[in-house]
Amino acid sequence: MRKESRLLKWIYLIVVVTALFLLGFAIGWFAKPTHPNTENSSASRKYLREFLDEMQPNKIREHLRKFTRLPHLAGTEQNLRYAEQIRDEWLEFGLDSVEMVPYDVLLSYPNKSQPNYISIVDQLGNEVFNSSLAEPVPEGYEDTSNIVPPYSAFSAKGQPEGDLVYVNYGRTEDFFQLEREMGINVTEKIVIVRYGKIFRGNKVKNAMLAGAKGIIMFSDPADYWAAGVQPYPAGWNLPGGGAQRGNVLNLNGAGDPLTPGYPAKDYTYRFSLEDGVGLPKIPVHPIGFHDAIHLLKNMGGQIPPNNWKGALNVSYRIGPGFTDDFKSQKVRMNINTDNKVTRIYNVIGRIRGALEPDRYVILGGHRDAWVFGGIDPMSGAAVVHETVRSAGRLLSKGWRPRRTIVFASWDAEEFGLLGSTEWAEDNAKLLQERAVAYINADSAIEGMYTLRVDCTPSLHTLVYDLTKQITSPEEGEEGVSLYESWHKRDNWTNDRDAPRISKLGSGSDFEAYFIRLGIAAGRARYTKNKKTERYSSYPVYHSVYETFEIVEKFYDPTFKRLQAVAQVRGGLIFLLADSQLLPLDADQYADSLRKYAHSITQLAQTHPEEMKVYEVSFDSLFSAVENFTVAARDFHERLQTLNRADPLQVRVMNDQLMYLERAFIDPLGLPGRPFYRHVIFAPSSHNKYAGMSFPGIYDALFDIEHSADPQKAWEEVKRQISIAAFTVNAAAMTLTPPA
Amino acid sequence: MRKESRLLKWIYLIVVVTALFLLGFAIGWFAKPTHPNTENSSASRKYLREFLDEMQPNKIREHLRKFTRLPHLAGTEQNLRYAEQIRDEWLEFGLDSVEMVPYDVLLSYPNKSQPNYISIVDQLGNEVFNSSLAEPVPEGYEDTSNIVPPYSAFSAKGQPEGDLVYVNYGRTEDFFQLEREMGINVTEKIVIVRYGKIFRGNKVKNAMLAGAKGIIMFSDPADYWAAGVQPYPAGWNLPGGGAQRGNVLNLNGAGDPLTPGYPAKDYTYRFSLEDGVGLPKIPVHPIGFHDAIHLLKNMGGQIPPNNWKGALNVSYRIGPGFTDDFKSQKVRMNINTDNKVTRIYNVIGRIRGALEPDRYVILGGHRDAWVFGGIDPMSGAAVVHETVRSAGRLLSKGWRPRRTIVFASWDAEEFGLLGSTEWAEDNAKLLQERAVAYINADSAIEGMYTLRVDCTPSLHTLVYDLTKQITSPEEGEEGVSLYESWHKRDNWTNDRDAPRISKLGSGSDFEAYFIRLGIAAGRARYTKNKKTERYSSYPVYHSVYETFEIVEKFYDPTFKRLQAVAQVRGGLIFLLADSQLLPLDADQYADSLRKYAHSITQLAQTHPEEMKVYEVSFDSLFSAVENFTVAARDFHERLQTLNRADPLQVRVMNDQLMYLERAFIDPLGLPGRPFYRHVIFAPSSHNKYAGMSFPGIYDALFDIEHSADPQKAWEEVKRQISIAAFTVNAAAMTLTPPA
Repeated sequence: MRKESRLLKWIYLIVVVTALFLLGFAIGWFAKPTHPNTENSSASRKYLREFLDEMQPNKIREHLRKFTRLPHLAGTEQNLRYAEQIRDEWLEFGLDSVEMVPYDVLLSYPNKSQPNYISIVDQLGNEVFNSSLAEPVPEGYEDTSNIVPPYSAFSAKGQPEGDLVYVNYGRTEDFFQLEREMGINVTEKIVIVRYGKIFRGNKVKNAMLAGAKGIIMFSDPADYWAAGVQPYPAGWNLPGGGAQRGNVLNLNGAGDPLTPGYPAKDYTYRFSLEDGVGLPKIPVHPIGFHDAIHLLKNMGGQIPPNNWKGALNVSYRIGPGFTDDFKSQKVRMNINTDNKVTRIYNVIGRIRGALEPDRYVILGGHRDAWVFGGIDPMSGAAVVHETVRSAGRLLSKGWRPRRTIVFASWDAEEFGLLGSTEWAEDNAKLLQERAVAYINADSAIEGMYTLRVDCTPSLHTLVYDLTKQITSPEEGEEGVSLYESWHKRDNWTNDRDAPRISKLGSGSDFEAYFIRLGIAAGRARYTKNKKTERYSSYPVYHSVYETFEIVEKFYDPTFKRLQAVAQVRGGLIFLLADSQLLPLDADQYADSLRKYAHSITQLAQTHPEEMKVYEVSFDSLFSAVENFTVAARDFHERLQTLNRADPLQVRVMNDQLMYLERAFIDPLGLPGRPFYRHVIFAPSSHNKYAGMSFPGIYDALFDIEHSADPQKAWEEVKRQISIAAFTVNAAAMTLTPPA
Repeated sequence: MRKESRLLKWIYLIVVVTALFLLGFAIGWFAKPTHPNTENSSASRKYLREFLDEMQPNKIREHLRKFTRLPHLAGTEQNLRYAEQIRDEWLEFGLDSVEMVPYDVLLSYPNKSQPNYISIVDQLGNEVFNSSLAEPVPEGYEDTSNIVPPYSAFSAKGQPEGDLVYVNYGRTEDFFQLEREMGINVTEKIVIVRYGKIFRGNKVKNAMLAGAKGIIMFSDPADYWAAGVQPYPAGWNLPGGGAQRGNVLNLNGAGDPLTPGYPAKDYTYRFSLEDGVGLPKIPVHPIGFHDAIHLLKNMGGQIPPNNWKGALNVSYRIGPGFTDDFKSQKVRMNINTDNKVTRIYNVIGRIRGALEPDRYVILGGHRDAWVFGGIDPMSGAAVVHETVRSAGRLLSKGWRPRRTIVFASWDAEEFGLLGSTEWAEDNAKLLQERAVAYINADSAIEGMYTLRVDCTPSLHTLVYDLTKQITSPEEGEEGVSLYESWHKRDNWTNDRDAPRISKLGSGSDFEAYFIRLGIAAGRARYTKNKKTERYSSYPVYHSVYETFEIVEKFYDPTFKRLQAVAQVRGGLIFLLADSQLLPLDADQYADSLRKYAHSITQLAQTHPEEMKVYEVSFDSLFSAVENFTVAARDFHERLQTLNRADPLQVRVMNDQLMYLERAFIDPLGLPGRPFYRHVIFAPSSHNKYAGMSFPGIYDALFDIEHSADPQKAWEEVKRQISIAAFTVNAAAMTLTPPA
């Protein structure tokens, strides 16, 4: 019996031991997370706070001071020096890698020995007036060399001479009014137009199409003066001797004019100048309003309508040519600007993603400036620099984002977005397959009023969430969020009670990423009060007066506005790179699409008769928007029940979000513009900076009024509606369950 | 002391219990795999064996018998009936979903009340000879209705009348020889050419460009007779009354001629017929050689070179027109074929992927046939049907592939690959982002000799591995693998000791997937002995004699050859869908690129003088191939050390493999051909079916010899070399570590 008892005891012991072991095993098994890399979002939130708090006004001031001492036009020695300095400092800040990426692109410079100017010549050919050869240099920069005088980059060379015709802003509609209502033909004439409303390259294209042999552009105080503000240096208005530099290409997103579609590397085939993309065939030159008065004051011909009149003390007569007293005088342009293939340098820095190194979040902005670049672009570059510094600090504390972050300092933006476009062409496949978002970082400030954000609809929600976590930079608003401060100043009228966010336009480095490749994109800066400040851009735009001092004295003395912009740009990058689920909102895209579809339909309905005759219907587009709306809603519902512990399921849905923007790309491009491929957001052909959504439909409707063959024009409207409907339907399909 | 002892005992017990629990916990923790879905590859291998073994010759015979009883031209009632039957049977077999996907595309049919024919007319206009209106109907099908007579689909209508000119195969070089060496202009003439060497649509294009007002195509026994074989039904040669149907479009991958670039849905905008893509502007008609003899026998003019002579008992004189005795006779074409927008139906079946539902492996082949489709395409469709049946059996045993499998029965392939192209256009975004591979399933047999595989280089290794697991279908080769049997019959001469695999050409449904979208693709079928059997395609190609019986009696009496093809096509799909790591080989792509670069360089070096004068160098291309080779080697090395237990790391590398083929797509397309975008493998403009690799360079070199401006032509060669070098470099970048 003892044996049996002992046996029982042993059995009992074994059972207990086994049971305990199994209990432990089971708890161990189930306690272990399925995937070791499930995100710790409270850690991520803590790091975001540290990342934002680390960005400091005085540091941004230092960066801006450092990078605005000398002129650094694209292709010059000094711009290479700044590139090297940025590379070195980004490495010091702690990025995983930083490289300089060169391209050889077509740039354009004035001829130093034969300066550009405009003359009035008498009948003997004597120059009785010459425009100024340079802007008066601002105080403190008297000894600075290499200040390029105002010029129109890529102007044709030549000495055209003839009568002036004034054509308001040089828009398509201005030329139509001139030709059809005023009966004036500009063939063999030199046109003079004021800056503003549309991209200057479009003015030049319109002048060429109309047959002009030269074009002069001037800054009218009506468009470049803020009320009650002194000219620089006493205030921040444009002095009468200042003028706006700028390229006059019609690239439509092609990048380097000689290598459209391909990166401008050493082995790349280059077109001849004759075959280059978008190069104007006529001389072009910009002047300030002091010089403009001399050209305009004696003009003859018709008195223009009121909306053609600027703020100068002249009558703005149309011409052609001068009044009777000056009839024998002509205007002559003397333009000797040279095109030249030149090496440029992008600086590309990277933080490798911990879990998804093949997902890229990009913060890019340009470094090249027309002169000092106090506002454009160095206010933006200083902000990027501070963002990199702050990210480096986080890395040293052990943080590493889930996805890869790419920082870019682009070159030659001012010459047609060349650095950013060549890099996009070079990396097109990688970007198309891997890029999550692109945040643009051009000028960080253009006014002193509030935040301005332009972005794709899927980013709206993220921008609102983020700005609630940032403090207002305005005096007296301590403890107020940037969101509240912004909301108070720029509410989304009618539509909704939230700060206004606008569509992305064109004309900065996001073009290749957003409009060609379809990568979700956005930009943020500090801006003016659009309701009361009606001038274009900001007064000293692209003049020598864009100095460090104009920012320090007027735009942002405490550098808190730039700090807020840094926090917005940086915070977007952080959240896009480090959130387990991509913070992109398809529902918001659906809402926006519906609004855009209504707007374009209303535009078409200004032709109710033709709509009937040609059987034009927007039904297919509205049906597509409805399909998209349902797909987006269902997608976000599925996201609620996603098993976040399963890395493949998370990746599958993130991929759907990442590729949402890609779905709006038409690989065939818009008519005649192969590199503008975004069916919703490419710029219109006629109005490059503003533009409706659905540019294909918009352009077709625009052409209706001017077409000789209305049936053909309406057929094109129908074709464009069909393309838009197909694209939106295809985008809806990308949001449905993948199998 | 007892208390202490009890306490000790308790402590002891607690320690033991805790230790046991912790031991169990630890073992449980570590025993659990990091990811529950790590592949069990031995299970997958077992399923592959079952999948291959399940495919049975007698079942394939049944499928073929069932789907070849009645003519089923695209757009007809009967082809819809077969589509419904396929849908129903695929659902019975067990697919997760099957849907019919309709499009409304432009098709072309003869006018039933006004048949097409060719006449010889005398000087009074009397028809002294008329070509036959139909082929003699094969035995057993005498009561069959709806056999469409031989015609050239999309021919223009018209009754052109004139002298004949014989232009050999109607190739670019034939027309050049005719015009430049023989001094004959075909303006206002009707040309007659023999079928073969190039796609018939190119012959028509060449005739139009040369100015002809009509074109007749005939099947010459030199090109459509196998030696020592009887005409059908005694053998498998083409009877003299048989003729080759076929479309004569020049679509260059556009799909439906009226909706290029977009799916032909109800709301889609359609171009007018005048603006449609690739529609010939002249009448076209095909005839058999019995009729051809009548047209050729009295022709006058020059005796042609020997390589212009076929195997008919005529002199093959060039013309124009007949010999003196028949000088007054002319040839008249009577063509009344109508274009018509018609509904077609694809059948799309799916097996949802277990782990990566958003990765697609596609097996697609067409269903529409010119008449019965005994070979083209139903030998292929029967094979797909059996593959679906076998996959359904596996599903019922609990198998589910890692990735999604898509099966497609395309419509209207014969009218320009319309069904497959419209679906690709409809799903372009999803396919571009998610498709792993496309396996084409057109005719499964065209000869009785051995296996033929055409595929992208990255699939070579997989094809070899798979065919070693399949048994030879040849009598007396029991126990011999398909690989060995194939290797013995068609070794890769010079290059390597392995069965020959060729490049993918064009002219079947893989075009939109491979050449437009850049999805890795391949095809497999049973073929003739290319060394001894020199005829084009197979003799009865596109005639009424493509019956079930020709397969059963001659091509594959045991249906084991079709079984082997089913196992190859099915096995490829299985392994691409179910392998944890994608079985794609970048090293092999590197090897192939090097060979192609050498070939195209050799072609250029037939012009050594001009190469020097115009400074043409292939260095950039070879340097790019070298970059690609290094990147591929490094990639496969990294793959060796990949942590396969980490699902994200596996996905990242699989994505690089999936997107490798995509990297060879140029979004701008080849010059003038926006839908042919594969820089390595698009067909040449001049030789649609054969074609060198690097079609851009090839076409530019081809144009050298015929260009009026050699400098411009050589500039284009240089531009194309630069594009090829850039593309290969970009592909190399996709294989490097992603960050």
